[in-house]
Amino acid sequence: MLCGQIAKARMSSTTALTIEALHERVEAIFSKAGLNPAQAGAITRAIVAGERDACKSHGIYRIEGALRTVKAGKAEPKAVPELLPQDAPAIVKVDAKGGFANPAFELGLPVLVERARATGIAALAINNAVHFSALWVEVEALADAGLAGLAMCPSYATVAPTGGSRPLLGTNPFAFGWPRQEHPPYVFDFATSVAARGEIELHRRAGKQLPEGWAIDADGKPTTDPEAALGGAMLSFGGHKGSAIGTMIELLAGAMLGDLTSREALDLLGTTTLYPKHGELVIALSPEAFAAGRPGSPFSRAEALFEAILDQGARLPSQRRFLAREKSRRDGISLTPQEMEQLDRFLEQGLDAV
Amino acid sequence: MLCGQIAKARMSSTTALTIEALHERVEAIFSKAGLNPAQAGAITRAIVAGERDACKSHGIYRIEGALRTVKAGKAEPKAVPELLPQDAPAIVKVDAKGGFANPAFELGLPVLVERARATGIAALAINNAVHFSALWVEVEALADAGLAGLAMCPSYATVAPTGGSRPLLGTNPFAFGWPRQEHPPYVFDFATSVAARGEIELHRRAGKQLPEGWAIDADGKPTTDPEAALGGAMLSFGGHKGSAIGTMIELLAGAMLGDLTSREALDLLGTTTLYPKHGELVIALSPEAFAAGRPGSPFSRAEALFEAILDQGARLPSQRRFLAREKSRRDGISLTPQEMEQLDRFLEQGLDAV
Repeated sequence: MLCGQIAKARMSSTTALTIEALHERVEAIFSKAGLNPAQAGAITRAIVAGERDACKSHGIYRIEGALRTVKAGKAEPKAVPELLPQDAPAIVKVDAKGGFANPAFELGLPVLVERARATGIAALAINNAVHFSALWVEVEALADAGLAGLAMCPSYATVAPTGGSRPLLGTNPFAFGWPRQEHPPYVFDFATSVAARGEIELHRRAGKQLPEGWAIDADGKPTTDPEAALGGAMLSFGGHKGSAIGTMIELLAGAMLGDLTSREALDLLGTTTLYPKHGELVIALSPEAFAAGRPGSPFSRAEALFEAILDQGARLPSQRRFLAREKSRRDGISLTPQEMEQLDRFLEQGLDAV
Repeated sequence: MLCGQIAKARMSSTTALTIEALHERVEAIFSKAGLNPAQAGAITRAIVAGERDACKSHGIYRIEGALRTVKAGKAEPKAVPELLPQDAPAIVKVDAKGGFANPAFELGLPVLVERARATGIAALAINNAVHFSALWVEVEALADAGLAGLAMCPSYATVAPTGGSRPLLGTNPFAFGWPRQEHPPYVFDFATSVAARGEIELHRRAGKQLPEGWAIDADGKPTTDPEAALGGAMLSFGGHKGSAIGTMIELLAGAMLGDLTSREALDLLGTTTLYPKHGELVIALSPEAFAAGRPGSPFSRAEALFEAILDQGARLPSQRRFLAREKSRRDGISLTPQEMEQLDRFLEQGLDAV
């Protein structure tokens, strides 16, 4: 995640919008661009959540890419996701029908929650979905329902497996959430590449070298040149271990769902400038069901762990995001004049703006 | 995992034992030490599998620690694991009754396989188990049944969370398996610490400095001195991402199961020289159930991915282990004179040998 790392513009002459006002504005943009209410509503919720949490990389910055993907005919603006008949009691399947993943998730969520409570562990398999938004939105929704959750999906081939020389794996995000009663949930959500592709792009624009270990060039040699990296491949976080986890995501959220791997998604799309279409896997687990009959509470035991982390001066992931959320609720969301102009332009011109 | 990294002794004057002969010898050791057939059989299978695969760190090297743990009264040699009544259709619970995790896994395995096939995804929760063996044995057993699998457990607090200064997390292994028809399964199994504790111990014995980034000293400062590292804390692989995954394992395979976190396990045991008691979580997923109704085969799609990894000169995890397995099946397992003597001594003296 790039949360908080893009557009740290000075806050002078910014406009503060309430969360609701930003929602209204973004949803109007997507409606104007021809998206039906299911699509427009769900992706607006995800984008506004990102902006609200100062996770700028997954905020309104994503509107343009979503519009471009629709304009290119690579995302169905009128898709109505369909909940498929349930064959296996612990699998909920939703066909996104070529639309965005968010409305498919929202459709599957209540069924997934109901299933996980009934069976102890359950999975939501989303197919045929265009994906561009943060996964923390989804594991947080599960945590709100008292469930632990895992979410993962392929992306498109930009990462070389450890020991390899060419892009094959995606940046394959991996997210986890754990419910807390008195606090926002324990949540992490990160790319299994060492950096997000956007960070390499940012280095290129800024004329900065990359840190060592981020990428290889087209010949498979380590490089710190962002241009060479964009023509070569990124590397996984944590060496062969991260590469193995990235591969696991290709298998579980690609092959296993009968949907595309990152290589197949890129081959089909032919570009990394639009958002890719593939599957997504979300696993929900009921701590109450797992801990039933055992002494003590799983939630208290988890709190003792969090306390011990904080006690030694370490942070919990997403802490910064939750602080930004509080601030946005209190003070509104600050947008720069450039951001406000862009929103106006999108609203006026619809798909012609991209 | 330390597979292949310990005891690369010269092979002169070694004894070659068949897999069966080694099994018989190791099982006799545990029987002599007072373990009942359920305990002795299951841990022997795990230990012999490690030795067979040249995964020396999880082979006969582990016998001594298992015996010491029994002798100290910290593992129940006569435990008969119990399959608990099933409350939730997708959770299989086994109480290891203070014995080793392996017989508990073997008891739960067929039920887990049956459940995963019926419900699509299912979990095995093991409680009250003494844990010391490799998790790849378990995800391979699921792969043999045509299922994808995840396995994880806490250990005892030896790893500091990123940004922290004191041991809190365990080395928390994380394993994954995917079934392949013409080849051994795709399997990885690694510590979520940057190195296994045994590797630091090996550096200490050899008088070698540690690589940068492995550990911090008792003051929380980075160190390359193995002695200082053993008195301080290890670090997670992959920085904050690995630390987040290690924390996830504490939550899912500790707190969620109503069992001990690594901190609690160490507090209870009071030493890192014996094997810790806690829970374990194994998740089984049916690719057939997930991919039902989708075009193509999930297994062919996975094969295309593996081929693309190998095509660019990268390796699949566990490849070296599977080669060693073939060799052991063909030529037997070679043990050094020291290893043979140790086995003889264990067999003769039982718990008095440790």
